[in-house]
Amino acid sequence: MSNKDFIDIDIAKVDIQRSERNGYPEVIYGEGKTADQIIEISKVLLSKDKTVLATRVSEEKISEIYKAFPDAVYDKEARCMSLNKKDTKKPDSYIAIVTAGTSDIPVAKEAAFCADVFGNNVECIYDVGVAGIHRLFACLDTIRNAKVIIVIAGMEGALASVVCGLVDKPVIAVPTSVGYGTSLNGITALLSMLNSCASGLSVVNIDNGFGAAYNASMINHL
Amino acid sequence: MSNKDFIDIDIAKVDIQRSERNGYPEVIYGEGKTADQIIEISKVLLSKDKTVLATRVSEEKISEIYKAFPDAVYDKEARCMSLNKKDTKKPDSYIAIVTAGTSDIPVAKEAAFCADVFGNNVECIYDVGVAGIHRLFACLDTIRNAKVIIVIAGMEGALASVVCGLVDKPVIAVPTSVGYGTSLNGITALLSMLNSCASGLSVVNIDNGFGAAYNASMINHL
Amino acid sequence: MSNKDFIDIDIAKVDIQRSERNGYPEVIYGEGKTADQIIEISKVLLSKDKTVLATRVSEEKISEIYKAFPDAVYDKEARCMSLNKKDTKKPDSYIAIVTAGTSDIPVAKEAAFCADVFGNNVECIYDVGVAGIHRLFACLDTIRNAKVIIVIAGMEGALASVVCGLVDKPVIAVPTSVGYGTSLNGITALLSMLNSCASGLSVVNIDNGFGAAYNASMINHL
Amino acid sequence: MSNKDFIDIDIAKVDIQRSERNGYPEVIYGEGKTADQIIEISKVLLSKDKTVLATRVSEEKISEIYKAFPDAVYDKEARCMSLNKKDTKKPDSYIAIVTAGTSDIPVAKEAAFCADVFGNNVECIYDVGVAGIHRLFACLDTIRNAKVIIVIAGMEGALASVVCGLVDKPVIAVPTSVGYGTSLNGITALLSMLNSCASGLSVVNIDNGFGAAYNASMINHL
Amino acid sequence: MSNKDFIDIDIAKVDIQRSERNGYPEVIYGEGKTADQIIEISKVLLSKDKTVLATRVSEEKISEIYKAFPDAVYDKEARCMSLNKKDTKKPDSYIAIVTAGTSDIPVAKEAAFCADVFGNNVECIYDVGVAGIHRLFACLDTIRNAKVIIVIAGMEGALASVVCGLVDKPVIAVPTSVGYGTSLNGITALLSMLNSCASGLSVVNIDNGFGAAYNASMINHL
Amino acid sequence: MSNKDFIDIDIAKVDIQRSERNGYPEVIYGEGKTADQIIEISKVLLSKDKTVLATRVSEEKISEIYKAFPDAVYDKEARCMSLNKKDTKKPDSYIAIVTAGTSDIPVAKEAAFCADVFGNNVECIYDVGVAGIHRLFACLDTIRNAKVIIVIAGMEGALASVVCGLVDKPVIAVPTSVGYGTSLNGITALLSMLNSCASGLSVVNIDNGFGAAYNASMINHL
Amino acid sequence: MSNKDFIDIDIAKVDIQRSERNGYPEVIYGEGKTADQIIEISKVLLSKDKTVLATRVSEEKISEIYKAFPDAVYDKEARCMSLNKKDTKKPDSYIAIVTAGTSDIPVAKEAAFCADVFGNNVECIYDVGVAGIHRLFACLDTIRNAKVIIVIAGMEGALASVVCGLVDKPVIAVPTSVGYGTSLNGITALLSMLNSCASGLSVVNIDNGFGAAYNASMINHL
Amino acid sequence: MSNKDFIDIDIAKVDIQRSERNGYPEVIYGEGKTADQIIEISKVLLSKDKTVLATRVSEEKISEIYKAFPDAVYDKEARCMSLNKKDTKKPDSYIAIVTAGTSDIPVAKEAAFCADVFGNNVECIYDVGVAGIHRLFACLDTIRNAKVIIVIAGMEGALASVVCGLVDKPVIAVPTSVGYGTSLNGITALLSMLNSCASGLSVVNIDNGFGAAYNASMINHL
Repeated sequence: MSNKDFIDIDIAKVDIQRSERNGYPEVIYGEGKTADQIIEISKVLLSKDKTVLATRVSEEKISEIYKAFPDAVYDKEARCMSLNKKDTKKPDSYIAIVTAGTSDIPVAKEAAFCADVFGNNVECIYDVGVAGIHRLFACLDTIRNAKVIIVIAGMEGALASVVCGLVDKPVIAVPTSVGYGTSLNGITALLSMLNSCASGLSVVNIDNGFGAAYNASMINHL
Repeated sequence: MSNKDFIDIDIAKVDIQRSERNGYPEVIYGEGKTADQIIEISKVLLSKDKTVLATRVSEEKISEIYKAFPDAVYDKEARCMSLNKKDTKKPDSYIAIVTAGTSDIPVAKEAAFCADVFGNNVECIYDVGVAGIHRLFACLDTIRNAKVIIVIAGMEGALASVVCGLVDKPVIAVPTSVGYGTSLNGITALLSMLNSCASGLSVVNIDNGFGAAYNASMINHL
Repeated sequence: MSNKDFIDIDIAKVDIQRSERNGYPEVIYGEGKTADQIIEISKVLLSKDKTVLATRVSEEKISEIYKAFPDAVYDKEARCMSLNKKDTKKPDSYIAIVTAGTSDIPVAKEAAFCADVFGNNVECIYDVGVAGIHRLFACLDTIRNAKVIIVIAGMEGALASVVCGLVDKPVIAVPTSVGYGTSLNGITALLSMLNSCASGLSVVNIDNGFGAAYNASMINHL
Repeated sequence: MSNKDFIDIDIAKVDIQRSERNGYPEVIYGEGKTADQIIEISKVLLSKDKTVLATRVSEEKISEIYKAFPDAVYDKEARCMSLNKKDTKKPDSYIAIVTAGTSDIPVAKEAAFCADVFGNNVECIYDVGVAGIHRLFACLDTIRNAKVIIVIAGMEGALASVVCGLVDKPVIAVPTSVGYGTSLNGITALLSMLNSCASGLSVVNIDNGFGAAYNASMINHL
Repeated sequence: MSNKDFIDIDIAKVDIQRSERNGYPEVIYGEGKTADQIIEISKVLLSKDKTVLATRVSEEKISEIYKAFPDAVYDKEARCMSLNKKDTKKPDSYIAIVTAGTSDIPVAKEAAFCADVFGNNVECIYDVGVAGIHRLFACLDTIRNAKVIIVIAGMEGALASVVCGLVDKPVIAVPTSVGYGTSLNGITALLSMLNSCASGLSVVNIDNGFGAAYNASMINHL
Repeated sequence: MSNKDFIDIDIAKVDIQRSERNGYPEVIYGEGKTADQIIEISKVLLSKDKTVLATRVSEEKISEIYKAFPDAVYDKEARCMSLNKKDTKKPDSYIAIVTAGTSDIPVAKEAAFCADVFGNNVECIYDVGVAGIHRLFACLDTIRNAKVIIVIAGMEGALASVVCGLVDKPVIAVPTSVGYGTSLNGITALLSMLNSCASGLSVVNIDNGFGAAYNASMINHL
Repeated sequence: MSNKDFIDIDIAKVDIQRSERNGYPEVIYGEGKTADQIIEISKVLLSKDKTVLATRVSEEKISEIYKAFPDAVYDKEARCMSLNKKDTKKPDSYIAIVTAGTSDIPVAKEAAFCADVFGNNVECIYDVGVAGIHRLFACLDTIRNAKVIIVIAGMEGALASVVCGLVDKPVIAVPTSVGYGTSLNGITALLSMLNSCASGLSVVNIDNGFGAAYNASMINHL
Repeated sequence: MSNKDFIDIDIAKVDIQRSERNGYPEVIYGEGKTADQIIEISKVLLSKDKTVLATRVSEEKISEIYKAFPDAVYDKEARCMSLNKKDTKKPDSYIAIVTAGTSDIPVAKEAAFCADVFGNNVECIYDVGVAGIHRLFACLDTIRNAKVIIVIAGMEGALASVVCGLVDKPVIAVPTSVGYGTSLNGITALLSMLNSCASGLSVVNIDNGFGAAYNASMINHL
């Protein structure tokens, strides 16, 4: 690899070597960027025939982006956008994405959108939190047959430990900012997941559906 | 009980077994849900003739919900909504709900609304914080004659300890986010209550009037 | 009640009215007190024929206390001591004390010791944490038949939510300092329990087996 | 005042102007200093006929210090030492020092020792915490007749608010590190006191009996 | 005093005994209250010929309040309102109010407004923070001649320590939320003030100009 | 699976179903347990011909354990013990374990010991932290050829991000408690890793070499 | 220097001695000030022929300020304004300003604007974070040839350590609030930078481009 | 530079390129290392004729190290050791090291020891904290004539701001863990320094005398 493998457009040094180095092209983190910056970076990536994936793209920004890229694919709940997605063959195995509650669904949608762009089959199971644990048991076969499992939960995040204690596959836990008061915007769920009494759990940042999908996709492609 | 006792409507797996298992039907936490989601879940519960209780329902959402359920009962201060409330016989005993200040009243209203839906008599006593402790002593008989007591306080939350030291009934303390600066949005009141020098106090999440009512109702129905 | 109902021994104003006011005599918190101070206060309580209960009494202190009170009853794991325990009739119902792991047993022992002194029957169930959740289901009848349930757990504290979602009795959760790193000496378990997605949970201070027993006893005696 | 008003002994620049500037001579904070350093600084102060006051002096250190100053006055509970104390006339008014519990007494002793060295009459009232609030009411006259009141409490620190709501004198609150778990070594009591619903409270650092005495003495000498 | 000395208007139990007990009538904390609630409580206080003082009254609320009380005195920067202020004789001594910067002035205005209502002369000195410490020395005589000093500072709050090291009067420090990033909305200034190396400092809650004025007024009236 | 698949020895309910459910037998967390408890639980596992793995076993405890199990395999740096390890065929692929510094080696040893017991080949690379980043590049081939990578770092934990940006395999980051002051016993490294700008990183608890090995082994066995 | 070297305009005591004492005139921190206050203070500085520099000036405020000073120089991204900038000779050496990502550019712009006003040459290098570390190596010569280096990064802030390990010049690290969840608004990047394993790093407040420029300018002018 | 420029001794990859890259050889952080590890790494550095500097070396470890290197230079207060120090010419300018109190001296000693090994003249000024600010003014010329200033302070750390407001040289602030209660082991001083109202301050980790010396030395050698 060469130190020259990027394109400098002043506001960014677009890394065009990343797909070779990391398996996927550079993903655009949309939150701190203007619509114009997202468009500029996308153009560079497209000029090299890379798939574009941008996360945390608000509805305000996408309306600007549509003007530049009318064929952009956007999911409002996931807040994700893609361009130039390739029809590569997906592995037969799938990633299970499991949420504790209805309010955790947007994070699951982000994970599912990204996992799809990264070339994975996905099975989503919503609202099986431990307040009604029989709902989880009803879905356990689908979870157990996945190659890797993403568990998404806010509040006390107990679902991650419970799932992890029932499977023999790697579990990636995503704490969400769902809750109030001492949920501390997701810190409580995060701490809970890091201290799981069940073994084999690893954790990503709060509301980081993208990161979980990236990690899970790497595992699913092994 | 069976793992099949829920109704899957994609965005939620509505737990229709909960009244058998936990004594009350599933309660809808309104904060992270859209008005449409609340309506959908309510319809499922009503289809099984369950009482619907939704908390943290904003005025924006209720105006949508009224279109679907014109007979919804809504309390603006409590931010709670109910449907299909049953006229079950209440226990003779009552729950005392005590607040330290005027600003804590909305949390008390949530607790009172929920306790009523759960089938309890309630006595509310507002603004008896320790800055003028003689106000508390004037109301002590009503508090002592309750079967269980909910104390709601923000700032330093001292009222919970003081009440607990004066009664022989279980006291459930609810810290509120009333205050500023080092009140830390209710963390200070919570910590204070967890460290009460008076014995017999238990604590719920900040501003969690619903949870306190749920716990108190269980005790009141023993 | 009178403002004179205490005995002043300089280092303490022993509250001899507490059993009338709160249902139980004053309990001695042993941690910040010398053996001599515990002995002095005990003598005052005994002079009024009160039952003495002291918590957090180390083995060093008890060896001193035995010299003054050879018939003191002491449990090394519970770190609790009692004197002059009365043979009052206990309610038929019982308190279930449930722990997530083996390391949580000392806190359970404190809770059980205190609950016994307060005049309660107790059923203890150890090591049913969610890493092997079938162990919990095997014990569920014993838990469900209790009048009130104490759940004791460290690490992520998920057991409290799971138990609470399966019963129709009040659940008192006790976070423990079991764990390391981000368990934060029990803060994580505490936060987890305060944010339980299951309704009806209330929480006491970290490792506070005594407080949970006190609260549970009040409920059990209703 | 002159920039030259100190004596430089390398390890310290002893401030010999402080009694003129601040009303009292420099006080030695003993915790981070060796016995030798305390002795050296004391000698400088004595060479200018200043009263020496050292706080947080452990028993190990005082045994060294006694060799240099056999007439040092030391209080083991207060962990304070004084030398060359002057018989100045004290104001007729007094400082009330009130503790919530027995375990808070060492901090009260530090406050009382310092207040005495600063030339004040003191009334100490121990163990009147809100778990048995009638004990406080029995002592209220002594508290109300003070010119300034120091309230010392750990755990939830509620006593400070309660006292403050009952008097028309300035109240200085001292949080103590008494407690466990979420008492956070005194942080909880501190936060509680800073958020008192009663007006007129000011707060010093955790376990800072000295600072409270210093502040109270200034007020008592007005 | 009697437990009956309050007027119950449901949303509040207005404490009409407070001026006798604490030296000043009940002050209305405006932040958590509606304009209507402030008006209702004010009417009760006025019916007993009490002076009304309300803090943290926004401009939106005052425009409502003016309709009920056209002669209300309101200071926009201080966000304080008073009614029925009495012309009592003020002590000859004064309170010095000192700020570190221009941005701290609103808190100083709150303190000054309240101190005036409580019957005190006040001297305000703005913008003498330690970045240009010669400005402080130029004003030192005014500060030293006060009976009690309020120091108001955000950011690192160093001014409080510096002033305290230069005077022989009690210093009340008010941390402000001025700053960004690690100023943590005033927590840093608060911690700094609690750990002052200069003796005799006491501290109130962040931005609590009212509390500082209340405490200072008590001292000034001794 | 059956709810009966555990053996109850009072202090523990040993989960003998775990290898079927999770791929590995129950692992003993040694920190909160006495040597006797570890021995008792080991005996139960051995009676079912399970491999025993115990982590966080101090040297004091192992000397007791050796009496019961003279053939116990113990690694002093790793603080891990195993019994009855099976000679199962390992996958050809390997786990790379990379540390930032020399002080992180004990956590790496725990990870390596556990990974070996779980049936994995391991390559360890120590002391390639970013202060001398050329050391990392010299070892990059070994890291890139692994199937999964564990990065162990204290202080600022930057190595995890740097490695993750250079590979196309899943990276599990283990923060360590190496550092002082604001390293906050590993919290800083943990936060750093959770916020990696490189994608595909997941994180376990501080100093949790075992958990990282467990997760990596699951991936390596896919 | 004299204690009289300031101009008192009530809302501020403008320090006109600062350029002599600190090397640069007083800089106006715009965030807590109104447009009017900024204008007033600017007029005083201009009356003494000082250069005016104001930071954190929003677009709303600048439109007011333009009315008073039509020739004000304003950079929208940097949120900085200057007046009466002098054409002093700059040192030949330059300050390198390096950012990890595109979202960190506004802080870099603040640093660059201020460094320029302070009389420095600046080289800006954007978006060389460790997710694509070859971009950094491509720019290393420019960084190494600087006299002092400012590294600006959010998220995990790893770039600061990496740069610091590659150069022999002082590195000033600026954490930014870029990130989400456990980035804690920049606290994580700050902690990371304070614990750098590379030596020679010093740190300023979150998003404090101004402070870094000030410090760097002092070094560049040595 | 080459990726091969280190010597691999298994427990460490000793960086022998660091003096060329960073200006000084690799420094050994002694805290997490055994005496044997320190000796091994020292031998490698000596084999390349590098100066050895090890920090945070306890007295227990040095007694072992003396056996291997009888001519090791060790300062007990500084806890630092050096070997093979070179007599290079020092710059004429000097570094001023200033402490707030006597208890901060050990950190100053570490800074002075390291600065000397790095080839710098140093002037130390102890105990000039703001409680007696005239002591600082008496030493101001020595401070102002330095090329770079290190300010070391615990408690509220106000000295750093005051010094910084009085000089036109870069100031590096070192918070110390001196204090108790809310000093939070140095966090308070750190936060205070990061929020200095005086410009031009940069900060290093708590008690990090070494880091401050390293940074100051780089500046002093410019």
